[in-house]
Amino acid sequence: MASSSPPTQQQLVISTLGAPRVSSPLPLSHVHGDGIGDFVEDELRLLYEPRVLANRSPNTLGFELAGPRSGIFFNPAKTSAAIVTCGGLCPGLNNVVRSLVMELTLNYRVHEVLGIRYGYHGLNPAVARPPLDLTETVVDDIHHRGGTILGTSRGHQDPRITVDFLASRGIDILFCVGGDGTQRGAHQIAEEIQRRNLPIAIVGVPKTIDNDIKYCFRTFGFDTAVEEAERVIDRAHVEAKAVLYGVGLVKLMGRQAGFITAAATLASGEADFALIPEAPRDLKGPQGFLAALERRLVAREHAVVVVAEGAGQHWLEHANRGCDVSGNPRLGDIGPFLSAAIQVHCAQQNIPVNVKLFDPSYHIRSVMANSADSLYCERLARAAAHAGMAGKTDLLIGLWHNHLVHVPLAIACNAKKQLSPEGELWSAVEALTGQQKWYDAG
Amino acid sequence: MASSSPPTQQQLVISTLGAPRVSSPLPLSHVHGDGIGDFVEDELRLLYEPRVLANRSPNTLGFELAGPRSGIFFNPAKTSAAIVTCGGLCPGLNNVVRSLVMELTLNYRVHEVLGIRYGYHGLNPAVARPPLDLTETVVDDIHHRGGTILGTSRGHQDPRITVDFLASRGIDILFCVGGDGTQRGAHQIAEEIQRRNLPIAIVGVPKTIDNDIKYCFRTFGFDTAVEEAERVIDRAHVEAKAVLYGVGLVKLMGRQAGFITAAATLASGEADFALIPEAPRDLKGPQGFLAALERRLVAREHAVVVVAEGAGQHWLEHANRGCDVSGNPRLGDIGPFLSAAIQVHCAQQNIPVNVKLFDPSYHIRSVMANSADSLYCERLARAAAHAGMAGKTDLLIGLWHNHLVHVPLAIACNAKKQLSPEGELWSAVEALTGQQKWYDAG
Amino acid sequence: MASSSPPTQQQLVISTLGAPRVSSPLPLSHVHGDGIGDFVEDELRLLYEPRVLANRSPNTLGFELAGPRSGIFFNPAKTSAAIVTCGGLCPGLNNVVRSLVMELTLNYRVHEVLGIRYGYHGLNPAVARPPLDLTETVVDDIHHRGGTILGTSRGHQDPRITVDFLASRGIDILFCVGGDGTQRGAHQIAEEIQRRNLPIAIVGVPKTIDNDIKYCFRTFGFDTAVEEAERVIDRAHVEAKAVLYGVGLVKLMGRQAGFITAAATLASGEADFALIPEAPRDLKGPQGFLAALERRLVAREHAVVVVAEGAGQHWLEHANRGCDVSGNPRLGDIGPFLSAAIQVHCAQQNIPVNVKLFDPSYHIRSVMANSADSLYCERLARAAAHAGMAGKTDLLIGLWHNHLVHVPLAIACNAKKQLSPEGELWSAVEALTGQQKWYDAG
Amino acid sequence: MASSSPPTQQQLVISTLGAPRVSSPLPLSHVHGDGIGDFVEDELRLLYEPRVLANRSPNTLGFELAGPRSGIFFNPAKTSAAIVTCGGLCPGLNNVVRSLVMELTLNYRVHEVLGIRYGYHGLNPAVARPPLDLTETVVDDIHHRGGTILGTSRGHQDPRITVDFLASRGIDILFCVGGDGTQRGAHQIAEEIQRRNLPIAIVGVPKTIDNDIKYCFRTFGFDTAVEEAERVIDRAHVEAKAVLYGVGLVKLMGRQAGFITAAATLASGEADFALIPEAPRDLKGPQGFLAALERRLVAREHAVVVVAEGAGQHWLEHANRGCDVSGNPRLGDIGPFLSAAIQVHCAQQNIPVNVKLFDPSYHIRSVMANSADSLYCERLARAAAHAGMAGKTDLLIGLWHNHLVHVPLAIACNAKKQLSPEGELWSAVEALTGQQKWYDAG
Repeated sequence: MASSSPPTQQQLVISTLGAPRVSSPLPLSHVHGDGIGDFVEDELRLLYEPRVLANRSPNTLGFELAGPRSGIFFNPAKTSAAIVTCGGLCPGLNNVVRSLVMELTLNYRVHEVLGIRYGYHGLNPAVARPPLDLTETVVDDIHHRGGTILGTSRGHQDPRITVDFLASRGIDILFCVGGDGTQRGAHQIAEEIQRRNLPIAIVGVPKTIDNDIKYCFRTFGFDTAVEEAERVIDRAHVEAKAVLYGVGLVKLMGRQAGFITAAATLASGEADFALIPEAPRDLKGPQGFLAALERRLVAREHAVVVVAEGAGQHWLEHANRGCDVSGNPRLGDIGPFLSAAIQVHCAQQNIPVNVKLFDPSYHIRSVMANSADSLYCERLARAAAHAGMAGKTDLLIGLWHNHLVHVPLAIACNAKKQLSPEGELWSAVEALTGQQKWYDAG
Repeated sequence: MASSSPPTQQQLVISTLGAPRVSSPLPLSHVHGDGIGDFVEDELRLLYEPRVLANRSPNTLGFELAGPRSGIFFNPAKTSAAIVTCGGLCPGLNNVVRSLVMELTLNYRVHEVLGIRYGYHGLNPAVARPPLDLTETVVDDIHHRGGTILGTSRGHQDPRITVDFLASRGIDILFCVGGDGTQRGAHQIAEEIQRRNLPIAIVGVPKTIDNDIKYCFRTFGFDTAVEEAERVIDRAHVEAKAVLYGVGLVKLMGRQAGFITAAATLASGEADFALIPEAPRDLKGPQGFLAALERRLVAREHAVVVVAEGAGQHWLEHANRGCDVSGNPRLGDIGPFLSAAIQVHCAQQNIPVNVKLFDPSYHIRSVMANSADSLYCERLARAAAHAGMAGKTDLLIGLWHNHLVHVPLAIACNAKKQLSPEGELWSAVEALTGQQKWYDAG
Repeated sequence: MASSSPPTQQQLVISTLGAPRVSSPLPLSHVHGDGIGDFVEDELRLLYEPRVLANRSPNTLGFELAGPRSGIFFNPAKTSAAIVTCGGLCPGLNNVVRSLVMELTLNYRVHEVLGIRYGYHGLNPAVARPPLDLTETVVDDIHHRGGTILGTSRGHQDPRITVDFLASRGIDILFCVGGDGTQRGAHQIAEEIQRRNLPIAIVGVPKTIDNDIKYCFRTFGFDTAVEEAERVIDRAHVEAKAVLYGVGLVKLMGRQAGFITAAATLASGEADFALIPEAPRDLKGPQGFLAALERRLVAREHAVVVVAEGAGQHWLEHANRGCDVSGNPRLGDIGPFLSAAIQVHCAQQNIPVNVKLFDPSYHIRSVMANSADSLYCERLARAAAHAGMAGKTDLLIGLWHNHLVHVPLAIACNAKKQLSPEGELWSAVEALTGQQKWYDAG
Repeated sequence: MASSSPPTQQQLVISTLGAPRVSSPLPLSHVHGDGIGDFVEDELRLLYEPRVLANRSPNTLGFELAGPRSGIFFNPAKTSAAIVTCGGLCPGLNNVVRSLVMELTLNYRVHEVLGIRYGYHGLNPAVARPPLDLTETVVDDIHHRGGTILGTSRGHQDPRITVDFLASRGIDILFCVGGDGTQRGAHQIAEEIQRRNLPIAIVGVPKTIDNDIKYCFRTFGFDTAVEEAERVIDRAHVEAKAVLYGVGLVKLMGRQAGFITAAATLASGEADFALIPEAPRDLKGPQGFLAALERRLVAREHAVVVVAEGAGQHWLEHANRGCDVSGNPRLGDIGPFLSAAIQVHCAQQNIPVNVKLFDPSYHIRSVMANSADSLYCERLARAAAHAGMAGKTDLLIGLWHNHLVHVPLAIACNAKKQLSPEGELWSAVEALTGQQKWYDAG
């Protein structure tokens, strides 16, 4: 799904704090066929591009595979780890916290795992609530609840303050669970650590309900979000069909990427139009969205429209809205804008339209993870624990062609992932909605 | 996850009925960057093994990628397609039927799509109910219901009778939705067609709730099954904890493969033991399951055990149970057997155990697809439609490292996929349950 | 729960089209103890007030009990019935339609049942789409979907036009499913019929998601709405707790009645404040809501507030907003108003509040009925069918102290039901939320 | 729904430990119209029979209404309460525990609330785990989980041992949450207390998923059970329709009462036959169940059968199975029996039947309460707290014509409630399923 140009092999090299110093306590082996789970070799790569023309030689560019190493950097009995969750809520945060704690304490048997409170602010002792001591008992039941028991916040900290805190508190590994802003912050912390030459590992766990982090085919919470979004589209369909010229308008998450919109549209099978940032349309004019919707309404007397929050920003007035505290540009609200635009247009055409706007963002973010995300968080968190214990740093756990891989933070957060409008996913949306024919009829 | 030895490149070659004769009516292009969805080239391959040691040259062995072709074999206006669903229920059957019909009728605009009734029996005119005429209206709402509107059955038909029927009824493409038995049947039909040199395409859509078809990382319905199974494990956990020495025993689907058991165990986070066919254990003796469970019960006073239906078959008496009508060996019922064995063992040890057995098979099979499976069925069905229209035959749509691929039926159904007990998935189960420590304490 | 003064016995008398002329075809009996279901006697009453002081004689004022009569007015073989659904969506509409059709066609075996399209507009042949012919096959599966297959609309028709249509189309019984506006319309139709002395029965089935129709302890859809609303409150709680000074603000349906707010607050157990029209509060000042919320936030650092859409209308500017097409006064939108007021107040107090507003109205209205509502719709619809076949008219089916009763339309829709702020339900809300202590602390 | 002969007024008198000695700390009033919630007068009665023939004088027999009293017996600051949960799991147990604790500690401000472990066994210090100290923090989140945090067990204790324990531990009020066996045990404890003339109150909270306790129109957990059971019936319907001559056979809870079977059948709308203990049928012969099912299968080619576990016990061999530890007679298992009987019968008639048996008992019992039950538990628990604090004893909280009432234990547990086969509920089942016509066709 990623459409940017490939990185270089040099850019894919993972930083480490040093050579392995300790044997892993995990009950695994290097022997294939002994019935015992396998360690993963550091030399194993996953090809960046496994699709090739027949009989052509593949490019050997590849990611380091994630997984447990037989030799690790940190001595578990002396290791303190800490977890911080940042940014907006996303289903699965508590699962990640729980699995990290379970793997680190029950399997690696580290000295302690701390829970940093309320995001990066919790790493500034001047303003922070003290960290939680995360034991098996504390986290035992938390995966059945949405949200994050650690609390979260938006915004950054001065990396020097953070590293002061990590060093003084004796934290060896910091797991940063958050989106691309959070991972950029994690990268700055790792750079500051490197400047001071400290043996502290920074491991990112990518969290974005929009699914827009590079080198992550899928991020946790996305599957749950699609499931919830599908239900909303289905209900919008019910509302739309129940009245003459009913329009169910569903605004979904996706500031710069249409993944939730595309996936929920496909899962639901009930949307007639899907609008995403990557496939911009005109609003007005004979080939514009309003005219296309009008044709559909005249022909079928109802319609369901799904719009990503970042779609159609060029339709709104070009006031510069500045950025929020996380550094993300403030968007105009496409939901009410589009609702009003549809009503005005239909009134001009004498169509007694009845628009119902659905904006389920918080409703979706706060739900507990579904089983697919629970499972994925479990895998992701354990891979992060393995990476941290092995002394790997300045990286996040990515997902590439279905395999967990190590991705340097520097390349993971230099741009956002977007959906390719020429790829299979979007083609399926076009095939399912048939929206193009309403545009073409203009 | 598949552990068998790799096929040869020759074995991966896809049969076709002939060269493309017609331009595809789909609104796609070959040009990257024109903002229009892309056709897929016939020469594109997905590497069989994208994991390599650093700097080693990858093997070029690869699968043909699925997707829409610009040149197709069948003239849509003259094409009749048929769909048959076979074997036990699986969430998503109606989604596959719906998406096939939608793609074939709305996008390719074929002449007709027929729905064969009640499995392969429906292809024998001597006993069959007449096929349904599957229009957009008929299938519009079916994805919101479990089951299959076509009906299903187990068992085979003489391929000669089937091919007689296909030829006489003028069916050009037959989509066979079913498990490995069904796909073997489909292969026999394709062979009979080849013998007669008829221009009829046979396209398999793999359906197995057990997720045990080769070259299919994941089959539709599996994700839904895991979601339902997770809920059952959670409830078994509630029952187990509510009484002293409570044991929640959950028997899940998986005749020869432990995928559902492993995935649901990981998703739930509440199971203490997971038993699968691929990782056999002793029942009795100090390192046996009963002793391990006893240790857990003494230490924690409750336990949750998840067992795949095909696990522990060596524990049951070796009566030859024969095969069912689909040719699958009849299994002994591990659920009641294990429940009784636990009770007898605990009685001997004076532990007042309280076993609650959960056997949710039908409950899981009959539910409607969740959103992840709905989305997957959508993709799978459209890929099958593209393959059939392109005149490809004797194949099924597989999923390999997250890409839909074409897999010859001959190699897809010559063995079942099993979970590797040394791979990441099972290692995660061991890490999560910590079951090994109860065995080791013996 | 109703708090108005009691009606007179005369007001409770049910109108009929005439004496029974036909024996009921239902397989019931008048004999207690024969194991056969019983007809209900016309003379049976349910006391208006079954609560009395010990040894005092109860007042004999009572409602006529609903149920099948042994003698009926309409000859089924010659009877045409029609169903119309009006107003906003409410879970259970399709269940009511299905059960009416099933009872009338399968058990009474009436000649036909028609489905009027898109509310009362469908009774005006000048503008209406033609009615649907509602057979068993048409309605078989509709109870698994939200919305109404008939379509709906707001607004009235001239009763003379409606009666012209009923008479010309030969409709004997019209079932009007809707809220108090709809029932007022039904009463006008019944009056027009009486003026013309026509043998046409008008039977109301009360539908209000707000649960605000008099003499109906509970209306269908209410239970489902509470279930969905509970989930929203739980998610608001998750959002509120995840950040420092988080406020989850949930706006629920309830234009003049706080039933959904009260019930969902009790079901959830997570709300800290509940605001309803029947228990008005000051917004500002030391005993006002904002000060009380501020105290809670300082003490606990998060809060969940549930507000009925009709609460706090006196806080908004007194612009006269007029009425909507159904004649209901337009309300100011308390959700954004309160969100802004909280933010302004907290900013003044230097509390960095983080308000998340949830407005799930359409999301709730469009869901399918839960099982309790499905069951209730089943009972309600069959009672309505019995009343209509018996020739009773100008009534609706009420629910009084757990029994279905006949209520004359004239008294059912002369005012709205409200929640008593001194009754058990609201006392439970006060006991659960403990909100009063934050007000009292001022 | 109760069909037994009415009690006498004397039998409805509630025992008390003595006259009120303390003013209630609850912020309620006796004044109607002051906007403050009302205390309930001790003299208020709810009529036993509110249905009367027009103009006849109602019988004044009535139950005491539950609710908060202005004068209470126990001084909160010195009061210790304890809660015990007994018997099988039922959705809502944790809600009852939570609401009791919240009302007693936050509103009455009692000294302590203890949680007795694992049922009545926990009242015998010789074998019991020590009680839990139930604070607000302990119970805060428990209503989101099924089961009971206290644990449960079946079986009784010697009431002398129990009373010794209560007296020595200084427990003033014991809340007994359980079925009719539990309430009989509670009555014995109350009798022993009376013999010793101790000021200890025994308050029953009726818990029976079967809904079979007298004077309780509905018990908590029943609504949730029906909701879950409906889903099972819907899935059985899917399985039945998916194959030729498919039979979905659903065995539901209901040892002596068919309430769940009847309600779930009505809620689902998909069952063709419902079998309950109160409406026995022949199995064989031309008017028997098997012949009726056969006719349905021949006509429609599939069928859904719902059977209460206590139905058809006369069909099983008359082995005396004795009683379980709670004193309930052991039943033969109607599920496998009926599945086999159907298969044998159909084989004889050459119908290739395909029976799928669903037995979801544990699956249903262990789920968390739905919102209607959560709300009901909230009301029930607070009513129980009020009764106990008022010094009322040897009673349970019943529900009569929609009002919470006080019912003496002696009459509540002298027999089980059953469904009337001539009442509205069963008539609705007959009307919906139309099952009688298949019997009559014999």
